Amino acid sequence: MALIFELGQTADEPLYRQLYRHLRDQILAGDLNPGVRLPSTRSLADRLSIGRITVTQAYDQLQAEGYVMRRLGAGTFVAEALPLPGNGAATESVAQERPALSKWGRRVVQIDKSPSRTGETIRAEIDVDFGFGRSFPHIFPYAVWRRLLARYLSTDDVMLSRYGSAAGFHPLREAISDYLARLRGVHCRPEEIVIVNGAQQALDILARLLLNEGDEVLVETPGYTDAFAVFQVYGAKLGALNVDEHGFPVEAIPPQSKARLAFVTPANQFPHGGAMPAERRLALLQWARKAQALIIEDDYDGALRYEGQPLAALQGVDEGGNVIYLGTFSKVLFPALRLGYVVLPPALLHPFLKAKSIVDRGAPTLTQAAVADFITEGHFERHLRRLRKEYGRRREILVAAVEQYLGANVSYAAEPAGLHVMLYLHSGLDEGQVVANSAEAGVRVYPGAPYHLQKPAPPSILLGFSGLSEEQIEDGVRRLGTVASN
Amino acid sequence: MALIFELGQTADEPLYRQLYRHLRDQILAGDLNPGVRLPSTRSLADRLSIGRITVTQAYDQLQAEGYVMRRLGAGTFVAEALPLPGNGAATESVAQERPALSKWGRRVVQIDKSPSRTGETIRAEIDVDFGFGRSFPHIFPYAVWRRLLARYLSTDDVMLSRYGSAAGFHPLREAISDYLARLRGVHCRPEEIVIVNGAQQALDILARLLLNEGDEVLVETPGYTDAFAVFQVYGAKLGALNVDEHGFPVEAIPPQSKARLAFVTPANQFPHGGAMPAERRLALLQWARKAQALIIEDDYDGALRYEGQPLAALQGVDEGGNVIYLGTFSKVLFPALRLGYVVLPPALLHPFLKAKSIVDRGAPTLTQAAVADFITEGHFERHLRRLRKEYGRRREILVAAVEQYLGANVSYAAEPAGLHVMLYLHSGLDEGQVVANSAEAGVRVYPGAPYHLQKPAPPSILLGFSGLSEEQIEDGVRRLGTVASN
Repeated sequence: MALIFELGQTADEPLYRQLYRHLRDQILAGDLNPGVRLPSTRSLADRLSIGRITVTQAYDQLQAEGYVMRRLGAGTFVAEALPLPGNGAATESVAQERPALSKWGRRVVQIDKSPSRTGETIRAEIDVDFGFGRSFPHIFPYAVWRRLLARYLSTDDVMLSRYGSAAGFHPLREAISDYLARLRGVHCRPEEIVIVNGAQQALDILARLLLNEGDEVLVETPGYTDAFAVFQVYGAKLGALNVDEHGFPVEAIPPQSKARLAFVTPANQFPHGGAMPAERRLALLQWARKAQALIIEDDYDGALRYEGQPLAALQGVDEGGNVIYLGTFSKVLFPALRLGYVVLPPALLHPFLKAKSIVDRGAPTLTQAAVADFITEGHFERHLRRLRKEYGRRREILVAAVEQYLGANVSYAAEPAGLHVMLYLHSGLDEGQVVANSAEAGVRVYPGAPYHLQKPAPPSILLGFSGLSEEQIEDGVRRLGTVASN
Repeated sequence: MALIFELGQTADEPLYRQLYRHLRDQILAGDLNPGVRLPSTRSLADRLSIGRITVTQAYDQLQAEGYVMRRLGAGTFVAEALPLPGNGAATESVAQERPALSKWGRRVVQIDKSPSRTGETIRAEIDVDFGFGRSFPHIFPYAVWRRLLARYLSTDDVMLSRYGSAAGFHPLREAISDYLARLRGVHCRPEEIVIVNGAQQALDILARLLLNEGDEVLVETPGYTDAFAVFQVYGAKLGALNVDEHGFPVEAIPPQSKARLAFVTPANQFPHGGAMPAERRLALLQWARKAQALIIEDDYDGALRYEGQPLAALQGVDEGGNVIYLGTFSKVLFPALRLGYVVLPPALLHPFLKAKSIVDRGAPTLTQAAVADFITEGHFERHLRRLRKEYGRRREILVAAVEQYLGANVSYAAEPAGLHVMLYLHSGLDEGQVVANSAEAGVRVYPGAPYHLQKPAPPSILLGFSGLSEEQIEDGVRRLGTVASN
């Protein structure tokens, strides 16, 4: 038996492990045949100039895994009848090709998804990145957050050592219920709130619970295409209505529509901007009652309004149990937190909870506990006030700069809300050209086309202001102005 | 116009908000008719003995939301043509009944899920809870963890203020790749690892990617029924094989089986205990290549072996790209962390990543960054060594106590691994009775039936030891012995 073997003294892999791996690979390759007797530990140790204990450890591991057998007094033998990769007829049909994907899997692979927001794809040197949906790091009260987290990181606490409830940490559900009632006009008991790993998870569960293949979902265009993708992978068809400055045009729902689900952003239409007035809200609720449909109200940034008070949520005036309310902490705390919540009408609560308990075990308890305290101890509302002030000022600066440098070349929704402004481009400006030329000028702006379902989409770009300083905003729009007036 | 209104000075809701809400509700109830003129701000303020600014704020909010209209010089009027709930034919078909659930939703509601592990359902006074899958809080190095978290909670860091990558935080993927190679015999590049919100999320995505309705999945029984539920909600049929002390009986796969997916726990069969020897592992790989099938290797506690070295993963000897490896930090750090990972064969990587980016935005960056440092700075392996020592001792004490107090009444797998022991009950002992009587005696043990697909299931109970002190284990088994020998 040839046992050619080079042992290396590396910090990473102990000697016995190298020997084990080497012998195993020889067995798997058929170089050491089944039934063959391995050298005694003593003789192999001598031959390799290593300790006998090292060889014993390697043999122990091989035996534990079933590659070798020890027979008392006779020695160590390669196991018989190991079904090696090279043996028998099986090798002929080695499946190196793609695994067969399900119908769902094939839809996933084919779907045209909107570009990532993480900015990984652009290569140019960017000084000002108008990425949207970000938060401004210097505003967040990290010291407070750190203190709240530390509170739960004590060894006396069993909270972290067990699985939490799939519905979410109860004190957080209480805190959210209270916050929603006071600041968003949402009426619900804590038990009707389920904590999710970001609003996207809630959408994914709702789509599965409510949609069969071929069902229609009414959506806004331009709209939140990340939500649309979730509906589409389950085989739903999108019934898209063009929004105006008052959001979702309820009166345009075709009377013959069979849709039993609508996805809307009433507080501040994404990405166009603009709030649904009471008339449309009530008409939408009326439609839902009549059609026995459900409405998903995505209140992704409803608390971020910079003049007057935030508009109360649609959920608060729903009397028929037709509204599912989605909230997130991504915009008002920070995106990397990955925590959202859904307020469910009574009839959906049990199915949603059951589904969540099957597909996921629940959000991290530590984060939930810290956010609960952040809310109940008043930090959250203080932070919201600060965000409104800081983001309101940034939005004003952006809008003023747009007026100054882009003037009559663009139009946009005047609603003082949200974390970005969507500019519609006039005078024959080409969207892709503006995005590319801006990047050349060190400014990253985001194309609006991926958010439009109408083709061709009216040329537009998105400018997020929440991750930038006031100087950067002014500077970025100035450079954009130079590019866009060429 | 009657305007009966009681304002209360409450800390929670500002006066203007109470007035707004009261007026809105009157409009919605039809008590204030469309077109009706509201009192002037001055006269209403006088009538209610509140400041005029309060009334103005309430009117502003009503106007912003579209419930009232201001006409210059004429006053404030209830909006015309509001489609109120009480108006028109719509009310006749008010949909108070359950929303129509999808096929998936109906399966979710109907599925028989294994009981929760959180211990919410038992009412008796419990002194010793043999809950399993827990971690022992006093062992975790909280001070280190706190320090690592704090590192990323500085205001200079933009990491938290943006959305992370759906694939996971790259340094964590690197750290896991390195750890898996050294300690679990798994071979992969960091790019083949995707971070998930717990292994359950990975299963949920894999089930959708790989299963069509009616497809068969080979599973172990007793087995990890939480995984089975995920397969079943997508309409898959379970092909269950009875495990023995060497885990999944590959040779029992029926030759006519059309299954193209198998779910196994090779390192330490859940919940029975026992490792798959090399012969079965290689036979399973051979089956997969021949059947062009995929194997999900759930290595939920593979690192927790108390004698010798942990057994290398199945993934490491797979040459056909047929193995999907699942890992979790729930068992080796703490369950409430909610962080897992999946190692994908090359052909599945893109579909999985695309699916994940559609249904979810990725795990919390902060936690990922802290875990990455925890691994690369050596804390993880130190912690693993400590866990092996602490849990190994607890297991020994449990097994000794079982021998002493339950003796010939039970049998169990002798494998020194995992976080629980499953006891099969002999001498006609009734599982439900033992669970109930134990609870009466202040000891919570867990019924084995929910983990068995064979009916009737052989009576068994599960005893987790990882969340208990040595004294509690001894005490609990002693009490159990009294109950079980009655």
